[in-house]
Amino acid sequence: MEVKVLQNILQANDAFAEENRRFFREKRILVLNVMGSPGSGKTTLIEKTIRMLEDRYNFAVIEGDVASTIDADKLSKLDIPVAQINTEPFGGACHLEANWIRQSTESFDLDKIDMIFIENVGNLVCPAEFDTGAHKNIVILSIPEGEDKPAKYPLMFRVSHAMVISKLDLIDAVGCDMELLHENLKKVNDGIIRFKVSSKSGEGFDDWLKWVQNEIEGIKK
Amino acid sequence: MEVKVLQNILQANDAFAEENRRFFREKRILVLNVMGSPGSGKTTLIEKTIRMLEDRYNFAVIEGDVASTIDADKLSKLDIPVAQINTEPFGGACHLEANWIRQSTESFDLDKIDMIFIENVGNLVCPAEFDTGAHKNIVILSIPEGEDKPAKYPLMFRVSHAMVISKLDLIDAVGCDMELLHENLKKVNDGIIRFKVSSKSGEGFDDWLKWVQNEIEGIKK
Repeated sequence: MEVKVLQNILQANDAFAEENRRFFREKRILVLNVMGSPGSGKTTLIEKTIRMLEDRYNFAVIEGDVASTIDADKLSKLDIPVAQINTEPFGGACHLEANWIRQSTESFDLDKIDMIFIENVGNLVCPAEFDTGAHKNIVILSIPEGEDKPAKYPLMFRVSHAMVISKLDLIDAVGCDMELLHENLKKVNDGIIRFKVSSKSGEGFDDWLKWVQNEIEGIKK
Repeated sequence: MEVKVLQNILQANDAFAEENRRFFREKRILVLNVMGSPGSGKTTLIEKTIRMLEDRYNFAVIEGDVASTIDADKLSKLDIPVAQINTEPFGGACHLEANWIRQSTESFDLDKIDMIFIENVGNLVCPAEFDTGAHKNIVILSIPEGEDKPAKYPLMFRVSHAMVISKLDLIDAVGCDMELLHENLKKVNDGIIRFKVSSKSGEGFDDWLKWVQNEIEGIKK
């Protein structure tokens, strides 16, 4: 019973997601869905990426959180359109759903936007199950979380097109077996594109920004 | 419809949880449910606590993960009974349910156990919604996750009796506004018992161990 209902919900969500993807492609707007644990550095990566590319492109952000507008308030300072989705009224859902995404963009002037970042609710389980309709999924894994996460949360790493290893500056302080991490990744998604960054030092951002720009340009064609 | 089904599931779970709590109390076994983000240090805290108290008490552990037996394998080295619950066959659930807890203890010799640690699935949302029947809930918050988590995930901090701030050794490297953290906590659960530990240096473990021992002795009375 429980499983059947979940399947229906997921099927309905998948249909909305496909529709979102088609809609935003037609509008020539790239949508990236950023997922990761609480405190992995999602907001910081988004903020830094926008700051470094704001001269060239127009951004908007959809912020997902169970409660609070802390991240949306932070990103609003970039002087871009930000929509906050709080899931507390929806049973405290641990993910964003495709129809919420579409609704939340109704307040945006879509003709003036090149790219939308979705910051999903912080966790490695449910956001992987609910397709938002983004063109690409990004999972952030921060160094203190450890190398075993792809083995423990395989679906998250399977549905992601790119992985950003964040907080690289902490590697000496906490240690992280990078070889084992790549081995664990290989088992669930060998083709995942990998970036390593430190938002603190700026290390690794060149490759990441190049990739983002390439994706934005790709959707314009 | 979706909400109604969820309510039924939660009600059934609550009944199982109450039954668990009564059952383990009668058996004079303390059950602590440890929750927290992926990589917050749940396994390390459990491992270290057991090592430091194993001369006085007999422990068992129930390990919850979507996939893999990495943590269960680690804890089995302590030569204690360990049960692994993988939620992948249950739709990749992001939490443990009360009836799974009871079933997984069927392999334990309960007459020889003083305390059971439950390590819940790593995330700050769903485990808060599903009562396991533990006598106390513990939330671990690691320093790199940041001071805003009680505001973003209020239910988790509301249902927890104690909070363990972990990875205290990283505070200089990453920074964490402890005053703001306590302010955020105050808004959702002013009475939560607070511990600050570093599993690396051992700092803060005395208070934590004293509390655990007190809880174990309390249930024996």
